[in-house]
Amino acid sequence: MYDGPIQDLIAELSRLPGIGPKSAQRIAFYLLDCLPEDVYSLANAITHAKETVHLCAVCFNLTEDEVCRICRDSRRDRTIICVVEESKDIMAVERTREYKGLYHVLGGSISPIDNRGPADLHIRELLTRLQDGVVTEIILATNPTTVGEATATYLSRLLVPLGLTVTRLASGLPVGGDLEYADETTLGRAIEGRRRIGV
Amino acid sequence: MYDGPIQDLIAELSRLPGIGPKSAQRIAFYLLDCLPEDVYSLANAITHAKETVHLCAVCFNLTEDEVCRICRDSRRDRTIICVVEESKDIMAVERTREYKGLYHVLGGSISPIDNRGPADLHIRELLTRLQDGVVTEIILATNPTTVGEATATYLSRLLVPLGLTVTRLASGLPVGGDLEYADETTLGRAIEGRRRIGV
Repeated sequence: MYDGPIQDLIAELSRLPGIGPKSAQRIAFYLLDCLPEDVYSLANAITHAKETVHLCAVCFNLTEDEVCRICRDSRRDRTIICVVEESKDIMAVERTREYKGLYHVLGGSISPIDNRGPADLHIRELLTRLQDGVVTEIILATNPTTVGEATATYLSRLLVPLGLTVTRLASGLPVGGDLEYADETTLGRAIEGRRRIGV
Repeated sequence: MYDGPIQDLIAELSRLPGIGPKSAQRIAFYLLDCLPEDVYSLANAITHAKETVHLCAVCFNLTEDEVCRICRDSRRDRTIICVVEESKDIMAVERTREYKGLYHVLGGSISPIDNRGPADLHIRELLTRLQDGVVTEIILATNPTTVGEATATYLSRLLVPLGLTVTRLASGLPVGGDLEYADETTLGRAIEGRRRIGV
């Protein structure tokens, strides 16, 4: 319907996650209407991020440096590592402001259906990080999904024999949620993990 | 929370219409995970569209050429012009496959509140297009909003004295809609514009 470059732009934008054809069209027209410098600044941000961002040599978080900001931060607790599937999970944990330790990004979960085994994750590198004996606790913060749980189980079998404290994030009702709308599995977990109060 | 280029990319993406901080983050991680050539192809599509797309010299539709594809198309009916506010409205009309005439993009609507008067729209150019007497009908397809209606009224006062057939898109109930959920104005228009059947 449109001439080449507009159609190309809409097609490229449609490939982004969560962007359907309508949103892609809306964004394309917005960009064509913007000041040129704003548009080039978006294009440059995309290219620049892709060119400079890579994985941290220690924890496999995304970073533009050799070692990421969290690993370099001397105020962080170096005795505890939170193991996550993806680097975006780090952002989710950081937003809580509850955690002051280090991270380790696995790069996914053990998922035979996707042909992804333990050797495809950064597990060997995690074990290397533990060799100096500084780390005393590992939090397994993989997703509460079948594959995330399987990955946590696999890791706990490797890590517990090393004499480390291995913990898993609590499962239960979301804060502000409603019992009536909780699925059976979540409610079952909440009952199983119930905590005594008033002691 | 993130190092420079990732945060820059998320910030740039958040400025797009309909993209909140969560979607921007999701798209940023998607791009960092993509093949580099796919990412550069997106950045190029953005830059290329911005560099090559401009307004058609005849109808002010977006095009990469001097004159847009619709204006050049010899199979289109040159006796009728559909006047729209924005070039994206052309796409909406084209999708119906009901219309085979030409277009004219005003570049907005008459809106005193936005400090936009008739002189800021491509009205003079529309009148110039009518001088050779080929055009016999003008469809005023501005939006059914206050400013769109005001613009249509303004144009009809200019065009009717020229002896042209001037029409306006029908207002009424959306197809597949429900009387119960129609607002009073739309239902009022539907009653006012009722059509006799069975004749």
